[in-house]
Amino acid sequence: MLKRYFPIFEWAATYDRDTLSSDMVAAVIVTIMLIPQSLAYALLAGLPAEVGLYASIAPLVIYAVFGTSRALAVGPVAVASLMTAAAVGNLAQQGTAEYYGAAIALALISGLMLTVMGLLRLGFLANFLSHPVISGFITASGIIIATAQLKHILGINAGGHNLYELVISIGEHISETNFITLTIGVFATAFLFWVRKNLKPLLRKWGLGPRMADILAKTGPVLAVAVTTLATFGFGLADKGVKIVGEIPQGLPTPRIPAFDLELWSAIAVPALLIAIVGYVETISVAQTLAAKRRQRIDPDQELIALGTANIGSAVSGGFPVTGGFSRSVVNFDAGAQTPAAGAYTAVGIALATLFLTPLLEYLPKATLAATIIVAVLSLIDLGALKRTWAYSKGDFAAMLATILITLGFGVELGISAGVGLSIFLHLYRTSRPHSAIVGQVPGTEHFRNIKRHEVVVTPEILSIRIDESLYFANARFLEDLINDAVAADPAIEHVILMCPAVNFIDASALESLEAINSRLHDAGIKLHLTEVKGPVMDRLKRSHFLDELTGRVFLTQYDAIRAINPHAAERALKAQRQV
Amino acid sequence: MLKRYFPIFEWAATYDRDTLSSDMVAAVIVTIMLIPQSLAYALLAGLPAEVGLYASIAPLVIYAVFGTSRALAVGPVAVASLMTAAAVGNLAQQGTAEYYGAAIALALISGLMLTVMGLLRLGFLANFLSHPVISGFITASGIIIATAQLKHILGINAGGHNLYELVISIGEHISETNFITLTIGVFATAFLFWVRKNLKPLLRKWGLGPRMADILAKTGPVLAVAVTTLATFGFGLADKGVKIVGEIPQGLPTPRIPAFDLELWSAIAVPALLIAIVGYVETISVAQTLAAKRRQRIDPDQELIALGTANIGSAVSGGFPVTGGFSRSVVNFDAGAQTPAAGAYTAVGIALATLFLTPLLEYLPKATLAATIIVAVLSLIDLGALKRTWAYSKGDFAAMLATILITLGFGVELGISAGVGLSIFLHLYRTSRPHSAIVGQVPGTEHFRNIKRHEVVVTPEILSIRIDESLYFANARFLEDLINDAVAADPAIEHVILMCPAVNFIDASALESLEAINSRLHDAGIKLHLTEVKGPVMDRLKRSHFLDELTGRVFLTQYDAIRAINPHAAERALKAQRQV
Repeated sequence: MLKRYFPIFEWAATYDRDTLSSDMVAAVIVTIMLIPQSLAYALLAGLPAEVGLYASIAPLVIYAVFGTSRALAVGPVAVASLMTAAAVGNLAQQGTAEYYGAAIALALISGLMLTVMGLLRLGFLANFLSHPVISGFITASGIIIATAQLKHILGINAGGHNLYELVISIGEHISETNFITLTIGVFATAFLFWVRKNLKPLLRKWGLGPRMADILAKTGPVLAVAVTTLATFGFGLADKGVKIVGEIPQGLPTPRIPAFDLELWSAIAVPALLIAIVGYVETISVAQTLAAKRRQRIDPDQELIALGTANIGSAVSGGFPVTGGFSRSVVNFDAGAQTPAAGAYTAVGIALATLFLTPLLEYLPKATLAATIIVAVLSLIDLGALKRTWAYSKGDFAAMLATILITLGFGVELGISAGVGLSIFLHLYRTSRPHSAIVGQVPGTEHFRNIKRHEVVVTPEILSIRIDESLYFANARFLEDLINDAVAADPAIEHVILMCPAVNFIDASALESLEAINSRLHDAGIKLHLTEVKGPVMDRLKRSHFLDELTGRVFLTQYDAIRAINPHAAERALKAQRQV
Repeated sequence: MLKRYFPIFEWAATYDRDTLSSDMVAAVIVTIMLIPQSLAYALLAGLPAEVGLYASIAPLVIYAVFGTSRALAVGPVAVASLMTAAAVGNLAQQGTAEYYGAAIALALISGLMLTVMGLLRLGFLANFLSHPVISGFITASGIIIATAQLKHILGINAGGHNLYELVISIGEHISETNFITLTIGVFATAFLFWVRKNLKPLLRKWGLGPRMADILAKTGPVLAVAVTTLATFGFGLADKGVKIVGEIPQGLPTPRIPAFDLELWSAIAVPALLIAIVGYVETISVAQTLAAKRRQRIDPDQELIALGTANIGSAVSGGFPVTGGFSRSVVNFDAGAQTPAAGAYTAVGIALATLFLTPLLEYLPKATLAATIIVAVLSLIDLGALKRTWAYSKGDFAAMLATILITLGFGVELGISAGVGLSIFLHLYRTSRPHSAIVGQVPGTEHFRNIKRHEVVVTPEILSIRIDESLYFANARFLEDLINDAVAADPAIEHVILMCPAVNFIDASALESLEAINSRLHDAGIKLHLTEVKGPVMDRLKRSHFLDELTGRVFLTQYDAIRAINPHAAERALKAQRQV
């Protein structure tokens, strides 16, 4: 029980010096990677740079206590930061105390939601986000984020929460471009792309191992930060209009429980839920991927608690919503992290940076951070998924495209909500017309097959229909239509047999439909029979009055039914093949 | 094609004198029944009494042209009238021109929605209303309607759109009770209950046939109307505080196309959709029940068009939303209606009444109409359904109870919306944990069964899992968890076989999950195989890259897979029984 809710007890007992040194190495590398990312994502969320550092301390320690993944690295990520900016931007002006307070409240509420969902074991709620929707949403978010960063690269003021607003706003202000800023931005972006593409092969050529080369290549942003900060400081570029991060308050945040504010909390409830679910889906898929590599298991419901408490921790320590990040988790894993303790050591690293390194970051140009973001999010944009999904399923493609277009055109909240709605709609549509077949007896056997695909024997007074789907409200009426039409079309029918080998479930709506079918057939002088009903389905039917009212019988097999209704026909079909 | 959209051509060609006389008899009886109902439901909707008559003319003629049911009688019904009152009551004060205009617009918009849904063949949308939800909704509506009528029985002013408001409001005004009104109301209610219960047996005793007795018993309200109107007129009760229907404008409505009003239309769009869908569900189930009795068929998509154009016709002729009514359709059917022409003749009857009878209705007490409504809606209340649904399915029971409570507590719109949401949620929850089993080979056979239920042979390095549900976004992650956990728990596993005989569909989310499972298993040195994949599912998989990436193979049967992976084990299991 204790281990279930505090997975730390599972690994802490066997923690030894080897694990410690592995975790420490991973922590150092992740810390170096996380510093510029934290600053950049705080900027993206419209928050002061230090808030990104605050969100990278307490959450990591808390995740180390509650998390079941050995390698997941939590902290600020691009998509959640964009969603934070969208949610908070509706409520307050960027730069105000209200804006910062709303971001903290957002972390708190989504943290509470996740924790409660975890305690109630509601992890399945994340399933409502289908893969095409989440993939389309991330692609669209990536496009919006990258576009929004252009203002920092150009050194202009611009804004907007959807692509249209952003492009218009950038167009209006493009004449105000600061060319020194643009030079820094373009240099940093180009450098980071070069690092991403060419540094690893270069390091390999210099004799580094493949893993080390990979890890070092991921720390490229630190180099860009160092060079551009030095240049800005050395040449006094801040006085020439290059926007810099500015003075970052030195020291750790004071833990403070956010005040209860019903109006604010209810205003951010929906965005908080969306951030919680999107963040959780990302976290869980990263955690599962890494766990599988070492045949470890993670507990999805406990991950809700871990991510939830991490967010509460973020809020209490003045941070904003955090999530398990893909690239930093992979780095953590590749650098050899053995336990979540690596995350706690990373937190120590970030705390030390907050205490001692912040003065060095004062002259860091915002354009460099923007370049970091652009290079990071461009890898999120996966337009190829559109093509793959189109080839596989037009319905899923429609959901994905709609999510992308609505997110780009109307912002993240409407985009993700519409995507969820569409996925559910498509699923109900798909199952509302279940596969079914009129079946006949395969000559010489006791088997029954689709009359359209096989040479089978049918008896005129018997209509045998096989349904290949569970029966529930979305397809209950379809079944009524199907049988009504078939019976109306053929006056010879005296018996309808429903063959149910693939019916795993009959809900109350479908039960009422069956009752209606039974009584309508009765009015028309036709008997209804069921065959091959699964055990659990039969158990449930026995709890209703349906079986008492059923005009026909329930048979174990389809052949039994035919033989009971028309022994000659069944016999004839069984012998048919022998004569051939 | 013409017959598809104008079913009138199907029966008009063979229309003869016999059919005519049958239809005429039915029309006379339905007309007598419909006059008090039309007035009463207009009152319920908060509209002048004559609007109920207007809504019973054009819609019936239009349905005769477009409808596919031979016996359905459309017109104002209780639930749609309550929903109209709720929707319009939010926008305007009862008795104003705005209120009436909004009711007309509601009929127009829901008519347009239904027609468009019919043309696009979107009849399946009605499936989203599960039976428990619609049943709970109708029960709750019946309770609200009956309670709301108490103010007319008591002769007081009271109002409210949910049970709580109504009860409070009635309690506040109960001291204003008019005792003459109360006497009329109680008398009418008692009389109508007596008619419903005892008139038919009495008429039978007097020698009438069962059908005729049934029909005559249904015209009881006319008697109550006549007696109480005469009493009110004769004793001058209107001057003593008995509220009467008052002067009804004589003559037919002038057709008028409602003016386009974007603000109004968007304000009523959601209620119009709800009325459209609830009305359609009622219509279709009545139509199907009656059609089945004579082995006729109805076309659900054409019924959308018929009901939609009927509502547009209602709006154009100054009426409010109409639906297929259950009791009047049954009367129409039992009275011998052979074709929809009976409806057109009923329309003529109502038109004549509107032209010539309305002066007689001036002194009709509202309490009598309220009594008619109370007696009619009490038959809608089906609390026994709660018990039946509880016994059959706790989930469906929860949806039903929630719909009832939310409708009673917060009104019809929230009630039905919450019910739909809950049904969908429950379905997704239910399918998010599909039935699955780890299977082994039944000794001496090539069959594979659940290891928990059967004595089977398993091979340590092979994990065989059978999934008994289509794979889609709501259960895709479950499959990942299932396989991850199983593999993490048993280091001996080298092969995972997914047995898919009950998988009718794999959507893009599930495909990505399969890809993730495949690649995670690959990282852990395990091969993934599929067996017994259905033809259409396989065709679709071939359009993706999954089969190229699959580390294992796709086998036709589970036995083939075991034999290919471990021939000795398969052989041994096959021989096992022989040794027994």
